[in-house]
Amino acid sequence: MSTIAFIGLGIMGGPMAAHLVDAGHDVVGHNLSRLAVDVLVERGGRAATDTADAVREADVVITMVPDSPDVEALVFSEDGILAHAKPGTLHIDCSTIRPDVARRIAEAERERGIRPVDAPVSGGEPAAVEATLSIMVGGADDDVAAARPLLETVGRTVVHVGPSGAGQTVKAANQLIVAGNIQLVAEALVFLEAYGVDTESALEVLGGGLAGSTVLARKGATMRARTFAPGFRIDLHHKDLGIVTAAAREAGVAIPLGAHVAQLVGALRAQGHGSLDHSALLTQVEALSGRAR
Amino acid sequence: MSTIAFIGLGIMGGPMAAHLVDAGHDVVGHNLSRLAVDVLVERGGRAATDTADAVREADVVITMVPDSPDVEALVFSEDGILAHAKPGTLHIDCSTIRPDVARRIAEAERERGIRPVDAPVSGGEPAAVEATLSIMVGGADDDVAAARPLLETVGRTVVHVGPSGAGQTVKAANQLIVAGNIQLVAEALVFLEAYGVDTESALEVLGGGLAGSTVLARKGATMRARTFAPGFRIDLHHKDLGIVTAAAREAGVAIPLGAHVAQLVGALRAQGHGSLDHSALLTQVEALSGRAR
Amino acid sequence: MSTIAFIGLGIMGGPMAAHLVDAGHDVVGHNLSRLAVDVLVERGGRAATDTADAVREADVVITMVPDSPDVEALVFSEDGILAHAKPGTLHIDCSTIRPDVARRIAEAERERGIRPVDAPVSGGEPAAVEATLSIMVGGADDDVAAARPLLETVGRTVVHVGPSGAGQTVKAANQLIVAGNIQLVAEALVFLEAYGVDTESALEVLGGGLAGSTVLARKGATMRARTFAPGFRIDLHHKDLGIVTAAAREAGVAIPLGAHVAQLVGALRAQGHGSLDHSALLTQVEALSGRAR
Amino acid sequence: MSTIAFIGLGIMGGPMAAHLVDAGHDVVGHNLSRLAVDVLVERGGRAATDTADAVREADVVITMVPDSPDVEALVFSEDGILAHAKPGTLHIDCSTIRPDVARRIAEAERERGIRPVDAPVSGGEPAAVEATLSIMVGGADDDVAAARPLLETVGRTVVHVGPSGAGQTVKAANQLIVAGNIQLVAEALVFLEAYGVDTESALEVLGGGLAGSTVLARKGATMRARTFAPGFRIDLHHKDLGIVTAAAREAGVAIPLGAHVAQLVGALRAQGHGSLDHSALLTQVEALSGRAR
Repeated sequence: MSTIAFIGLGIMGGPMAAHLVDAGHDVVGHNLSRLAVDVLVERGGRAATDTADAVREADVVITMVPDSPDVEALVFSEDGILAHAKPGTLHIDCSTIRPDVARRIAEAERERGIRPVDAPVSGGEPAAVEATLSIMVGGADDDVAAARPLLETVGRTVVHVGPSGAGQTVKAANQLIVAGNIQLVAEALVFLEAYGVDTESALEVLGGGLAGSTVLARKGATMRARTFAPGFRIDLHHKDLGIVTAAAREAGVAIPLGAHVAQLVGALRAQGHGSLDHSALLTQVEALSGRAR
Repeated sequence: MSTIAFIGLGIMGGPMAAHLVDAGHDVVGHNLSRLAVDVLVERGGRAATDTADAVREADVVITMVPDSPDVEALVFSEDGILAHAKPGTLHIDCSTIRPDVARRIAEAERERGIRPVDAPVSGGEPAAVEATLSIMVGGADDDVAAARPLLETVGRTVVHVGPSGAGQTVKAANQLIVAGNIQLVAEALVFLEAYGVDTESALEVLGGGLAGSTVLARKGATMRARTFAPGFRIDLHHKDLGIVTAAAREAGVAIPLGAHVAQLVGALRAQGHGSLDHSALLTQVEALSGRAR
Repeated sequence: MSTIAFIGLGIMGGPMAAHLVDAGHDVVGHNLSRLAVDVLVERGGRAATDTADAVREADVVITMVPDSPDVEALVFSEDGILAHAKPGTLHIDCSTIRPDVARRIAEAERERGIRPVDAPVSGGEPAAVEATLSIMVGGADDDVAAARPLLETVGRTVVHVGPSGAGQTVKAANQLIVAGNIQLVAEALVFLEAYGVDTESALEVLGGGLAGSTVLARKGATMRARTFAPGFRIDLHHKDLGIVTAAAREAGVAIPLGAHVAQLVGALRAQGHGSLDHSALLTQVEALSGRAR
Repeated sequence: MSTIAFIGLGIMGGPMAAHLVDAGHDVVGHNLSRLAVDVLVERGGRAATDTADAVREADVVITMVPDSPDVEALVFSEDGILAHAKPGTLHIDCSTIRPDVARRIAEAERERGIRPVDAPVSGGEPAAVEATLSIMVGGADDDVAAARPLLETVGRTVVHVGPSGAGQTVKAANQLIVAGNIQLVAEALVFLEAYGVDTESALEVLGGGLAGSTVLARKGATMRARTFAPGFRIDLHHKDLGIVTAAAREAGVAIPLGAHVAQLVGALRAQGHGSLDHSALLTQVEALSGRAR
């Protein structure tokens, strides 16, 4: 069993840390708001007073925070990982950040004997709760091998996709597909409603054919019901689409639909809906179609 | 057991008719090219000399042809269904056509005592072969009830979605989602290749999370291998996107991604690739990215 | 001087007919609403009781109506042009309609000895009032030559662009460019306002460089002021974008921006703003940006 | 008369410096390739050996280089403007760079007593040669007043649009409109050619109506002739569209057409056409339409 510093106990990090406690690990949690730490302690974890405190005795540091600068602060700041982690510590970053930042962090950590693994996840809150996350892992072979048992404790599909940063690159592609799929399902639903089709039946049959998708299966019913509690917030998906459009631009890859849906997500956020679940793209299709409720 | 006239024995119609023969029905086939009829006869079906001949003695007429005018010709022409089918005949149209044409045909058939069911299918050639099609059915309750056992012989998900034409409306939505999903997967794949990621691993992990889809599962590997034998031809998907964009325009529904991918499919066709599988959208993303092979 | 039947005395047709009266022609007007006819009579024209009455004695028939079916009705109906115009009559259609409909009308008219000219106009209400319209003319050489003096009475740039229908094809291209330009100016304005730039100065300097356009010059100030009285209605521009997208699809021409702006115009109309000037695309950019006033 | 250090004597900077020489100023030029400096010397200017040398004795420093990092290097490097310019020196940056970088440079310069003016230009090579540039100027009132006579020597429309950075913000908007207009004209031309319309006549009549624009007037004929010598390179326009999309994202402004054309420009560049004039967007429309020559 390992001593694990878990930093970032939000919607996703909270249930992930809990699964690691349940699996018998010694989990020391740290989080901006204290409430989430208390929940972890009640589950059997321990509380750290700050990052340095959490990291100091850990065999493994897992970070799950919103954006690239957050991870950079955890790694590079005075009370951060580089300054306080023991040589040999495994740092698994489950945040979704820029692939180039992930590569830069990996280099800096290796120089200090820390073993970096980028391991962003997909599946959203339900998959975090059910420990069925899909995890795209980048890093050196033995570092990924060392991380695997822990990742398999919180995820169902854990795949080593390449060297450091590759996990983030695959996650960027994942976010492009997910945003696009949600928008397509939203357009289809508004279209069907405009024609008076019973969308419950329609979703069932769409799900059975080539249009079937995890988005349709997991989000279809709540989209029909206009329930947009996150889940995964528009704010974060907007951030992620910034990552993938920048990376595609950098590599000279055309992503016409990706860039298009990035505009639509950005618009929804600009209208003040950043805290809604990303499936709220539906409301924008309705508004554009003069069918707002 | 029914006597079934099956008109249109192509990539989709051929295997569907075969399943009906296997289920013990008396299937009388008709097709433009004689070869497909011979295959049916070898399987245990019978050959009709023309539409009138096929239709005359049938309890059920199933049509599976490319486009709205093809179905209109089968219904309204001198040797067609209206002229030669017995009152009480069930006409199941499995073609993908314009919803308004489906409604017009249904009206004309009802006036002559024929029972119209629109039942377009999704899943492509593999699902036709495996009898796992997803079928979106429009029509009156008892007509659909009468059609259901036959549809369940060729499909796995058979859902009554509304009155005549509703099946076609749902199919239109299906084709919007499918084209968009393929394009998104294509963009993701080219993006990942540009970054040197192993796309076999990437597809595995993408499939396990919120980006998962039937397109990814069924088309991902052939897209990686650049195998674009149809399957479902760009020509036909172009036709279908014409249907959904016209219907959305008619209803005043905004389909920004749908209209965008319709342009991309139209472009691929204009470049002479109409006979390739729709997953060949990948090659266009490559060309736009200066990465054509 | 000619006897001219002028049918359709709306925002555009009214001032055009007035210029022809002023130039000394005998203008017999017909219009759905009687008010516009009275205005023409006051100016020195005459009133017809119906189309047949207007057409019967005319040397020239000019039609200026909203859409393809309107022109078709004027040509093919019982009291229409084919039935009542003298052989040798020149029919100048200034409406914006489908190029294929223009070609079909031209064929039918030639069979009856009528001389068809398609002559759609650009420039909007101010250009109609100032007789500075830009007119794109399709037809046979001598028919266009015969029409030219009349067209030059209402327009400044009168160009023979090809055979029957070619005028409409160029007008379709015109409407694609205009809608796109308005949307681009709208995006630029909202962008500049978001950064607190003085847009009056900005429009001045934008107009002096490569971004300069007639749209910027004629619509920039009213867009800044949010004055969206037509001018040219969203409803009509939506109709025109339907023409150009259908024609581009028919010819296999990719119009990515054209199709995109067609969606945006369609959305604005679906939201109930069809009666506003097309420059109201600005309000939609504001709404999408969370900056609606 | 002023002593002017002119740094960056390329397609645009070369003719601008020449006009200043012609107007009687003492112009000291510096450029990466020596050839352009020789041309200036022949015209009556002087050659500097490096930036420090050019800047040291100057009353005015004008910079005209490709991108934000180039200007930053000229300002902040050891042999740069901050280190070597006299207090009171006017620094007019005519480059097109990020507005936020322009603001940061302005702050740093003011701290050292240097007077910053951002003055990006529009109109392309012909306008530089003819001294008819449109110049969008940001800065403090008296700094702009001091720069105005020099700017009016090279431009026709010189407008003070706001404080430091505002010139760059307006230029960003300018580049969005220009790219979009070129793409719209390209789509229109390929559409017209597909229908066999004489595009010379068509351009004439389009130019006379609401579709008229500087792009149409200056680029129409060369686009018809497929002459794509720059002019303004795709590489640079791609850079500029990166600026405007990032700035729009930062401000939460929806630029659907802007983002779309940014993809198209990026694609053309990824295909290896970065050195062509931006009007080469036409070739991509042809390729997408299967009409490549």
